[in-house]
Amino acid sequence: MLTTLFTKLEDYYPEMVEIRRYLHQHPELSFQEVNTANFIASYYEKLGVEVQRGVGGNGVVAKIQGNYPGKTIALRADFDALPIQDEKDVSYKSTVPGVMHACGHDGHTASLLVLAKVLHELKDELHGTYIMIHQHAEEYAPGGAASMIEAGCLEGVDVIFGTHLWASEPTGKIQYRTGPIMAAADRFVITVQGKGGHGAQPHKTKDSIVVGAQLVSNLQQIVSRRVSPVESAVVTVGSFVADNAFNVIADKAKLIGTVRTFNEDLRDFIADEIERIVKGTCIASDCSYSYEYIKGYPAVVNHKEETEYLVQLANDMEDIKVVEEAELQMGGEDFAYYLQHVKGTFFFTGAKPVGVEIAYPHHHPKFDIDEQALLVAAKTLLSAAINYK
Amino acid sequence: MLTTLFTKLEDYYPEMVEIRRYLHQHPELSFQEVNTANFIASYYEKLGVEVQRGVGGNGVVAKIQGNYPGKTIALRADFDALPIQDEKDVSYKSTVPGVMHACGHDGHTASLLVLAKVLHELKDELHGTYIMIHQHAEEYAPGGAASMIEAGCLEGVDVIFGTHLWASEPTGKIQYRTGPIMAAADRFVITVQGKGGHGAQPHKTKDSIVVGAQLVSNLQQIVSRRVSPVESAVVTVGSFVADNAFNVIADKAKLIGTVRTFNEDLRDFIADEIERIVKGTCIASDCSYSYEYIKGYPAVVNHKEETEYLVQLANDMEDIKVVEEAELQMGGEDFAYYLQHVKGTFFFTGAKPVGVEIAYPHHHPKFDIDEQALLVAAKTLLSAAINYK
Amino acid sequence: MLTTLFTKLEDYYPEMVEIRRYLHQHPELSFQEVNTANFIASYYEKLGVEVQRGVGGNGVVAKIQGNYPGKTIALRADFDALPIQDEKDVSYKSTVPGVMHACGHDGHTASLLVLAKVLHELKDELHGTYIMIHQHAEEYAPGGAASMIEAGCLEGVDVIFGTHLWASEPTGKIQYRTGPIMAAADRFVITVQGKGGHGAQPHKTKDSIVVGAQLVSNLQQIVSRRVSPVESAVVTVGSFVADNAFNVIADKAKLIGTVRTFNEDLRDFIADEIERIVKGTCIASDCSYSYEYIKGYPAVVNHKEETEYLVQLANDMEDIKVVEEAELQMGGEDFAYYLQHVKGTFFFTGAKPVGVEIAYPHHHPKFDIDEQALLVAAKTLLSAAINYK
Amino acid sequence: MLTTLFTKLEDYYPEMVEIRRYLHQHPELSFQEVNTANFIASYYEKLGVEVQRGVGGNGVVAKIQGNYPGKTIALRADFDALPIQDEKDVSYKSTVPGVMHACGHDGHTASLLVLAKVLHELKDELHGTYIMIHQHAEEYAPGGAASMIEAGCLEGVDVIFGTHLWASEPTGKIQYRTGPIMAAADRFVITVQGKGGHGAQPHKTKDSIVVGAQLVSNLQQIVSRRVSPVESAVVTVGSFVADNAFNVIADKAKLIGTVRTFNEDLRDFIADEIERIVKGTCIASDCSYSYEYIKGYPAVVNHKEETEYLVQLANDMEDIKVVEEAELQMGGEDFAYYLQHVKGTFFFTGAKPVGVEIAYPHHHPKFDIDEQALLVAAKTLLSAAINYK
Repeated sequence: MLTTLFTKLEDYYPEMVEIRRYLHQHPELSFQEVNTANFIASYYEKLGVEVQRGVGGNGVVAKIQGNYPGKTIALRADFDALPIQDEKDVSYKSTVPGVMHACGHDGHTASLLVLAKVLHELKDELHGTYIMIHQHAEEYAPGGAASMIEAGCLEGVDVIFGTHLWASEPTGKIQYRTGPIMAAADRFVITVQGKGGHGAQPHKTKDSIVVGAQLVSNLQQIVSRRVSPVESAVVTVGSFVADNAFNVIADKAKLIGTVRTFNEDLRDFIADEIERIVKGTCIASDCSYSYEYIKGYPAVVNHKEETEYLVQLANDMEDIKVVEEAELQMGGEDFAYYLQHVKGTFFFTGAKPVGVEIAYPHHHPKFDIDEQALLVAAKTLLSAAINYK
Repeated sequence: MLTTLFTKLEDYYPEMVEIRRYLHQHPELSFQEVNTANFIASYYEKLGVEVQRGVGGNGVVAKIQGNYPGKTIALRADFDALPIQDEKDVSYKSTVPGVMHACGHDGHTASLLVLAKVLHELKDELHGTYIMIHQHAEEYAPGGAASMIEAGCLEGVDVIFGTHLWASEPTGKIQYRTGPIMAAADRFVITVQGKGGHGAQPHKTKDSIVVGAQLVSNLQQIVSRRVSPVESAVVTVGSFVADNAFNVIADKAKLIGTVRTFNEDLRDFIADEIERIVKGTCIASDCSYSYEYIKGYPAVVNHKEETEYLVQLANDMEDIKVVEEAELQMGGEDFAYYLQHVKGTFFFTGAKPVGVEIAYPHHHPKFDIDEQALLVAAKTLLSAAINYK
Repeated sequence: MLTTLFTKLEDYYPEMVEIRRYLHQHPELSFQEVNTANFIASYYEKLGVEVQRGVGGNGVVAKIQGNYPGKTIALRADFDALPIQDEKDVSYKSTVPGVMHACGHDGHTASLLVLAKVLHELKDELHGTYIMIHQHAEEYAPGGAASMIEAGCLEGVDVIFGTHLWASEPTGKIQYRTGPIMAAADRFVITVQGKGGHGAQPHKTKDSIVVGAQLVSNLQQIVSRRVSPVESAVVTVGSFVADNAFNVIADKAKLIGTVRTFNEDLRDFIADEIERIVKGTCIASDCSYSYEYIKGYPAVVNHKEETEYLVQLANDMEDIKVVEEAELQMGGEDFAYYLQHVKGTFFFTGAKPVGVEIAYPHHHPKFDIDEQALLVAAKTLLSAAINYK
Repeated sequence: MLTTLFTKLEDYYPEMVEIRRYLHQHPELSFQEVNTANFIASYYEKLGVEVQRGVGGNGVVAKIQGNYPGKTIALRADFDALPIQDEKDVSYKSTVPGVMHACGHDGHTASLLVLAKVLHELKDELHGTYIMIHQHAEEYAPGGAASMIEAGCLEGVDVIFGTHLWASEPTGKIQYRTGPIMAAADRFVITVQGKGGHGAQPHKTKDSIVVGAQLVSNLQQIVSRRVSPVESAVVTVGSFVADNAFNVIADKAKLIGTVRTFNEDLRDFIADEIERIVKGTCIASDCSYSYEYIKGYPAVVNHKEETEYLVQLANDMEDIKVVEEAELQMGGEDFAYYLQHVKGTFFFTGAKPVGVEIAYPHHHPKFDIDEQALLVAAKTLLSAAINYK
């Protein structure tokens, strides 16, 4: 059975590439993916697959019912692009100025569409139900996952699988991880309100730059002293602005930064600790402050059993040469939300362009992938889907 | 003799006011004071006083030779205005949008012109030589004093006197100070060059905000630890800019600030200490930096004997009710340069508008003076000039 | 075969307890364990087992040769005690004032001795060679392992297994970990040499407390900014001493601290980063310094294959209810050295006293273990030894 | 009249030296000066001068009534010694181990005693009343001045004069200053209470060293930012103690320091600012603290008229070659208390040993003075006393 499916996937590989390249040439920004959504939905409609448009925004959900009873398995691919100018010199280069599929979502989509076509063709022999979640807006919080879930895309779903094409690793490698795999990526904004004045009269002022500077130093303690050494966390002040004339004492300093964590308790703890430090540091200099902590996506936390299930499958697949534990990734992914609702796992599918020592990183203007990896991704997801009991 | 001169000054007081108001209505920015310079020079020409135009720029120097031998005494008045919109509601309001005599230089000039007229009228009875230095560009470094000196305005001069109308103190008060009275006002620019990167990957970067923050804290030590507690100095970082996205680690941070001191050794010492701290702080984080220390005017340092001479004179003048020691002023003045070449003293002449509890500060859009103070200034300078032996 | 060996171990359990209690009553400090070493060697001599005394100090190595060819397997137990006053109220309490087996080494030794006795009794049926490494001085760097290895205790050895009785976990639980499991635990000593003086004359001094304080703050950056968020490291300043009169400026400040890491590159990197920060911070204040980084034991890094082998064995043992991945332990162990020379793994054997919610921690004056755990340890090690191919 | 008195002083100079050397050989610590007090009182008794023992402790007050009516003038000399081992190699070296007149109080006393003898001898010709205040315990807060005042030593007094022999300046120089001349010298003690623990587990602790370090840095701001640049102040942390093992996180850090100021408002302001900074800094790390601010002597604030009176006198004295304004002295003196009650002035009498480039500073084990300065001090005080109207 799996062999038949795999052979079909291989046969349709040219179509997969064609779709991916079409999408690559016609990228759309998050929340604006009208044509891409239409392209996806039309594909299903042409196949005669039941499809729902406009799920929680531009989301598209297709459903393939196997002939026999079984679990309901969801597979997810995201399809938005990034505000980056494509600088590659290839035939399938983006045709939209300043917009580019620089993260591989075109590949995710192409892979899942062809996978679905194969499932559809053999549905009479299949157990269970297959839900294809084509998600818009992964790149831009609040993302599309949350609204698609709210719109019901996970109703009845038993398990979900998703992958990300991963340009840093070679094709043929799968990276998994039980528990947290990608970080919660949050943002904070601190404004220190001092009292401005003349640069030569500090005693008549409250120097907000001095206080902001202490804050930056004090925030280092969170990771160095308050987080367990065996946990991962990042607290970064990425922006410090108090833009004045040289002979002035700064009235106000604005600090903006990011926090990355892998568990919710630590995430909330750090949000509170930042405020504690802001508060104390401002009290020490009699300044006031504002503090805002804006949560991005939560951490992607894989389920143990499903991850082990995937690892076993992957180990048995001929196309997969290496199955290894992924390092914790500090980036975020709104696949996190699906895993808060149903069991499942999210993994990385190596997609490093052939002949390249170090690939351009994701979000780079010259980012590209090895298209062969689309086939690996499709086979792995498909295998995960039809074997799940 | 002095009585005669004073009476004449009083008689000409209406002219003094008229000139001041004319200048107030026609202010010119530093280094652009062509009409003002012409106005001054023409005044002397009409009187038949020897006058030199274009001294070191827009400077004007007039010379009145007494009938008897004696010292050569210089009196200085500056005549540039500021890039401030006049917001006063008076008949003599500035007619030039965005330019205003918000520091009293119009008064200085009017006072000195009329003083010169009086000297000229009685020159047959006078000892010595009188040099009227009408200086352009006091408000904007490098200022006019240095170039006028270079152009020879102090040649043969034995002593110089100058005053600043001082709106915070009432008319009838003179403030003097032996030694330093106004600060050297310098500027510094530091750029910390780290290595930017993703906010979630600090270990691949050199966080210039963290280093900049340490710098701000470390610079506090200069005043708290390295300057003698009985000396006055200010080190202020007025601007801190590392303006980035929240999820980035800052490649570069730019700090700009000011230093105020009252003696040259300390001034140079602090310039060096800042660099020492910048250097060490950057070494600690393996960052590079650029550092620029831009000297403004030096401190105005009054000569002891001339100051005491002035105090005694002032104490004997009927128009002067209070003679008191001035506090150190953290602002700068390029009168400093004259005092590096010849003996002399610079003092403050109270000029607070009548009926006002607290006057608008110098450089304020509503700044004004009590014109009666022009007479006090003229009398004091004149008295200082003709009594000097 | 294993069954027979396990039954024998169970039969000898009372002896195991007896030995453990004897040792518990007669603890000896690291490098002073003459009687304990003699006790161990005599035990082997009485059994007729080949034993070598004085291996690399007080170390004792016994050798049991199986009847059939096979691998050479080493098992290690340490036997030194701690400078702690036993505060337990039990019959087998330490009889030596201020010295105590507060870390379970008595149990390690008793367990291994009886295990060896069993091996010896059945050696005619065994494959391979069994090396019992009874190590002195684990508690006190430089430890006994390094010198015993130098003395040849690992010659011909193919693999080594060791365990630590772990009072925080219940009897019946085994904790393993592939790769790093226990930290490299190093020490550093920094002296900031400023220039002392009178507390009221900071400008004539170099304030070493101010510099030391900056150092403490700056060192926080190592973990917060320079170590990858997915790696574990600790940098702690545990002691800061500049002990002076209140009206003095401190000539010197001494900072002592510890560093914990799990890989050698990071360890060296941090040692260098500390120096970089010390150097830069001292340059910024024109102070000099001394810096010493004293390496303790390296990280205990378990070999993958041997750890997986152990996990499989443990999963199959009836006495073991839970086999779980250990968290990284920030403490050190000189078992690390053995694993730098031969393959093997080090694991934790749960030994929480029965009926206790939270056990007294290791090195606590009331520390104790559940003696039943000795049997679990013996069975696990024995199973690992005779099954190793 | 003054000539007669001066001649007498000169004649008695050998006695002055003899007394000074006797006292130098028999120093007594603050509050333990029983023999010295007895020596002084006996001296007066032998002369037949009215004397009161035990004034506010070991204080001695003598009174000489002139024949004619006039003001009541107090002269003060302190007589306690220091806990310093005399390391000079002179015949009059201290005979008491570890105790030494290392600040010149022996000279103050000898000078005043002989001055009094002269006054007594000529009292029939004198106007007014002369009060000799021989004060114990100047070196050790709370000092003897406050209690002597409470005991009534200033009752009826119109004016007070006092001097300090000043080894850094040559004999023949007098240094005066209107307003503040010596600092208020206070002490503070801060304890940061964190939560101790293992050096490898920062997240379970509150690191008091990290907080203490922030405190030291933050306290620098008081002088650099919160005190007017034209005011003098010092805030020094002289002692930082958190003395622990290297692998521990410090439970507690103790900081002790000093504050120097010249006006009461600033003094109180700084005491409050320190607490604000301690409070805020501890809040930022969730630590608790204790804070104690212990006031020492207030600033010595000379009265304007009396200081100018003294300057004029000094200018007229043949023995005095230089009369100059003293720099602010950061040291303290409980003469401050007298000047809070009556008018007067405190000045420095140059006493640098002859032939020495730089004298050993006060409180140095090799401190000494030029005894000729005793005569200068006596003459100046005497002149001030009898001329005061």
